[in-house]
Amino acid sequence: MKRHRIKFLPADRVFVVDDGENLLEAAMKTGIHINASCGGNSTCGKCKVKVIEGNVPSSANQKITQQEYDAGMRLACMTTIHGDMVVEVPLESQVDRAVLKRKRKVSTPHIISVSDIGQLVTGWEVDPAVFKRYVELPIPSIEDNISDLGRLTRELKKKYEMDDIAIDFRVLKRLSGVLRDADWKVTVTLVQTKRGCKLIYVEAGNTVNKNYSIIIDIGTTTICGQLLDLANCSVLKMVASTPNGRDVCTLAEVSDYNAQISYGEDVISRIMYSQRKFGLKNLQEVMMSTINGIVEELLEISKIKADSISHCVFAGNTTMTHLALGIDPKYIMLSPYTPTTTFIPPVRTIDLGMNVGEHVYVYVFPSVASYIGGDIVAGVLGSGMFQKDKVTLFMDIGTNGEIVLGNKDWLMCASCSAGPAFEGGGIKFGMMAGKGAIEQVRINPVTYEPMILTIGRVKPMGICGSGLIDIVAELLLAGLIDQNGKFKNDIAIKRVRKGESGFEYVISYASENQVHKDIVITEVDLDNLIRTKAAIYAGCKVLLDSIGLAFKDVDKVIIAGGFGHYIDPEKAQVIGLLPELPLNRFIFVGNGSLLGARLLSFSKGFLRDVERIASMMTNIELSNNNKFMDEFIAAMFLPHTEQRAFPGVIKRLEEDCFVKIMRNAVTQH
Amino acid sequence: MKRHRIKFLPADRVFVVDDGENLLEAAMKTGIHINASCGGNSTCGKCKVKVIEGNVPSSANQKITQQEYDAGMRLACMTTIHGDMVVEVPLESQVDRAVLKRKRKVSTPHIISVSDIGQLVTGWEVDPAVFKRYVELPIPSIEDNISDLGRLTRELKKKYEMDDIAIDFRVLKRLSGVLRDADWKVTVTLVQTKRGCKLIYVEAGNTVNKNYSIIIDIGTTTICGQLLDLANCSVLKMVASTPNGRDVCTLAEVSDYNAQISYGEDVISRIMYSQRKFGLKNLQEVMMSTINGIVEELLEISKIKADSISHCVFAGNTTMTHLALGIDPKYIMLSPYTPTTTFIPPVRTIDLGMNVGEHVYVYVFPSVASYIGGDIVAGVLGSGMFQKDKVTLFMDIGTNGEIVLGNKDWLMCASCSAGPAFEGGGIKFGMMAGKGAIEQVRINPVTYEPMILTIGRVKPMGICGSGLIDIVAELLLAGLIDQNGKFKNDIAIKRVRKGESGFEYVISYASENQVHKDIVITEVDLDNLIRTKAAIYAGCKVLLDSIGLAFKDVDKVIIAGGFGHYIDPEKAQVIGLLPELPLNRFIFVGNGSLLGARLLSFSKGFLRDVERIASMMTNIELSNNNKFMDEFIAAMFLPHTEQRAFPGVIKRLEEDCFVKIMRNAVTQH
Repeated sequence: MKRHRIKFLPADRVFVVDDGENLLEAAMKTGIHINASCGGNSTCGKCKVKVIEGNVPSSANQKITQQEYDAGMRLACMTTIHGDMVVEVPLESQVDRAVLKRKRKVSTPHIISVSDIGQLVTGWEVDPAVFKRYVELPIPSIEDNISDLGRLTRELKKKYEMDDIAIDFRVLKRLSGVLRDADWKVTVTLVQTKRGCKLIYVEAGNTVNKNYSIIIDIGTTTICGQLLDLANCSVLKMVASTPNGRDVCTLAEVSDYNAQISYGEDVISRIMYSQRKFGLKNLQEVMMSTINGIVEELLEISKIKADSISHCVFAGNTTMTHLALGIDPKYIMLSPYTPTTTFIPPVRTIDLGMNVGEHVYVYVFPSVASYIGGDIVAGVLGSGMFQKDKVTLFMDIGTNGEIVLGNKDWLMCASCSAGPAFEGGGIKFGMMAGKGAIEQVRINPVTYEPMILTIGRVKPMGICGSGLIDIVAELLLAGLIDQNGKFKNDIAIKRVRKGESGFEYVISYASENQVHKDIVITEVDLDNLIRTKAAIYAGCKVLLDSIGLAFKDVDKVIIAGGFGHYIDPEKAQVIGLLPELPLNRFIFVGNGSLLGARLLSFSKGFLRDVERIASMMTNIELSNNNKFMDEFIAAMFLPHTEQRAFPGVIKRLEEDCFVKIMRNAVTQH
Repeated sequence: MKRHRIKFLPADRVFVVDDGENLLEAAMKTGIHINASCGGNSTCGKCKVKVIEGNVPSSANQKITQQEYDAGMRLACMTTIHGDMVVEVPLESQVDRAVLKRKRKVSTPHIISVSDIGQLVTGWEVDPAVFKRYVELPIPSIEDNISDLGRLTRELKKKYEMDDIAIDFRVLKRLSGVLRDADWKVTVTLVQTKRGCKLIYVEAGNTVNKNYSIIIDIGTTTICGQLLDLANCSVLKMVASTPNGRDVCTLAEVSDYNAQISYGEDVISRIMYSQRKFGLKNLQEVMMSTINGIVEELLEISKIKADSISHCVFAGNTTMTHLALGIDPKYIMLSPYTPTTTFIPPVRTIDLGMNVGEHVYVYVFPSVASYIGGDIVAGVLGSGMFQKDKVTLFMDIGTNGEIVLGNKDWLMCASCSAGPAFEGGGIKFGMMAGKGAIEQVRINPVTYEPMILTIGRVKPMGICGSGLIDIVAELLLAGLIDQNGKFKNDIAIKRVRKGESGFEYVISYASENQVHKDIVITEVDLDNLIRTKAAIYAGCKVLLDSIGLAFKDVDKVIIAGGFGHYIDPEKAQVIGLLPELPLNRFIFVGNGSLLGARLLSFSKGFLRDVERIASMMTNIELSNNNKFMDEFIAAMFLPHTEQRAFPGVIKRLEEDCFVKIMRNAVTQH
């Protein structure tokens, strides 16, 4: 791939970026502040830059006059880099030189690339548990008039050495017609289970190339699905990425809010609702309607017919797993918090009301305990930590925060009632990581003007997890809030004002966004976020302490969750969500649940690993745990009351404080 | 049991009979003719006898005047034997002494007793595939808060050393509630399959003593069900009989016509109908409605609740098996006669629309070929022939005639398109073996008056298989018909007359029966019966010839079928249905299909035997088989064109011919 040199003026700093990158995004990544409040979709017109050198083919538009255009002015958000450039950032976007100098090095977010994710788990090959085989059968005669099924299994034995195949009786209903209509040339779909091989579908002709899986991560807030191509895949292909940043075996990805949200935001309120008359049935059906919507869209996007889907995998927390199957979750909520089951046998999709072929079974990831679900087991699988000698800390930050510590020999886990802040819950303008969500934010520490990027580069609609982390860190670094998460009352700027819930900072004005209300972050939001991050950090501490380890002993921190495209680990350290470790120890895998579900779809060998992982994971109950309460309270500070644990962050805050004094001096001057 | 001596006068013959036996039945059994045309229910009043010695406590009734009563006259059908007796048969019932003398010995029908049937198969013990276990679980605590399912399986492992139990996901739906409502004391139902053990039901309290199976023989004409007590049974109990002649483990037995009869009498017409729109669905539902009616009645009779049923077994011919499961049977009918499947996986009753507990699975007996079904495999299992060194001939005579020849090392089988004569089909007054069916008949060779017994000793409604065999044999022995099955035109008696379908014999006048029409046997009936018996005999011959054996090499002939309570093997030899072998070689087992299904319910070890039997059975196709056609034509005679094969019958016919001449001489004198 071609790379280009971009020099930003007046900062006089040079960065090397990939060909095709967006100029505003490049600036964000490299720490150059350019005001931008529309999220990157050219409507605010604030990100004007002057191109001093280099060819920018973008034309004038309503935000750039012809005169400006001729003078080399361009909107950074509309500019794609196709060669070396020298770019001047306009005065109103500039940050004090002293501040810029402080940014000694580029903070590279360790979003793991598709190829890296494919290599977290090693020693496996593509060999799906659900597979297809093509056979041509000899036509029956009076000398050879065994049953149709006998003919089929005889040929499977002869050609593929398959023996002792169980049969779904629904296959038999149509078998005689299918075989004859297909002129005795058919493709069978088989599923390998612990107890042997089962024939679940017979169809005309050779369709071995059409074998697809749908995997669903059932979150309390968000349900996310992917459609996978099982037939045309190899480990090699799984690490090749498509233009949309997925591996080539993932044909489509669709997310939606879990429609159960109407019945409560968290698992507890869902469980309460399930106890009403028809409540459980209702919740199951409503969830399935979301899943069916996702399935429909996945099929539409990938142009795959429903009957080519051979396999489904579900991974969700324990409550969602219970609700998906219509199992009463009541006792998950009541002490001593016993789920009905942690293990779910394969279930036919038709029994759940899921709209794929009648023959398709769902594999549901097993849970560990009431608050450590199949999504975490899937994440541990996908993280590869169960194969490693060194210790990994796995964190899945969704509606709850679940953490797993361990290696190939032992796994400890815990669930922190973190709250759904990072998925948008309890945050006034919080939203899931979807189109229009503010995912990256910088605040100019001089002007306090924000630079924001939204997912999909459309006008903002709200704030997702990664945006929230950025905002809080930036508010802290800019000195707008103190370490308790309260707005400082000595700063009189327009963007900080008193709102319904105390003080708030306006990130996007009504005129610039899709919601036609000022998008703000309030002190209540900040409080919620601090509680969330404190619970997660405290949980990690308790797990580490329980086996006499410290953060420094952790080789890799694998972070899963639906924050957004990625989170900036440096910013997460600033707020004390992540421990202060070298940045190269952090790996962001995005949706961990899908990561594991994908592996399981591609290789049946993981069935055993999943069982082993689930049975190895020892759950530490944090509720009513005094140690946890102490750690939680200690962490209710930005970054942490124990400042020694965050020396880098503290140093930076002190530097910024110095800069602020400088700045004030300059202003007054 | 007490036994008594009965002397019949004027024949001056003494028989020993069991205490409590009916006098008319005793006379029938011992060959003493007493006119009786109401089937044994006291309405015709023809069976008057004079009790010379002995105490008969029956009172006078409308058929016996006080004067007659005082003189010792009694109705034989209303008389129970409770002591030694001397009985005089009235003049009008008497048969010529010469004829009586001919009956040298009593023909003991080899109906096998319950205890004998229980001993046909050896080397097994009661150990049902579906079984219950009671457990008391420790109550969850915060220290022990594993899932409900985990708690249950942990205890099953601990207490019963059961491991690797699969789970039906429907169990999980109710599990948490059931365990708590039951105060953690529950009974689980488990099913052992080839692939392991599966937990299918959990219920409160200790119900291990309530474990029942319903077994269903699905005949083309008749469906018969039994309700079995699996929990309170042992091999010992299985050979103990109840007053109704069943073993004590069989709590109820119910039969009904297969409601599919409205869509055709034989399998071919059913298959044709199944090809219409909704035809298959309709046939499946209609069959299931019959089965559900039977289930309901079984539960009612035995006072068992539906949810105590844990297991179902179906055995039927290949077409019925296909229809029961809604599998298209089309190609069973078309050359080269391939069924869709011979093997059926366990199916949930609820998927078939059968009204027992949702958790119950049906085990369906495997078939061998299109015209050798699971009913025959069940019969072979029940016959024990698969365990024997010596050669057994097994015949199942229902709507078709299926025969199996073999021993523990080999099994040959064939299906003869025999027609349903023995189940009442194609016979003008034919009916299944139910209440009111004429099951035993003697015809006085002098007066040609019949002596008949019906099932249930009620007024006649029609003729079942055993009655039909008796009638034809008696008509032949009495010289009313010739060896072609045609009425002799030299006998002018009232009971033989010309009807709609040629000549006919009146067995029961309209005034004496329930149908209010003369019950007759016609020449068309005789022709149908001869075709049927010829097909069966010819089939046996072909099977024997195919491996170089003759009838004499057969150690036992096991006869299954719904003829009635039993058939008289001597009479069956007279018409040439059975070969002329010593009578002690014949064993009548009644419904063979239920016999096997019962064994399978009681002991899971038979699962393997059934598989072995089905795979061992080699089918010989008789359609388009020239040898079979030759043998069939040769057998279209009473008893057979090859008279050497039936020396005893021929001798007897000749003797009776002599008696006839004598009688005529006497009459003329």
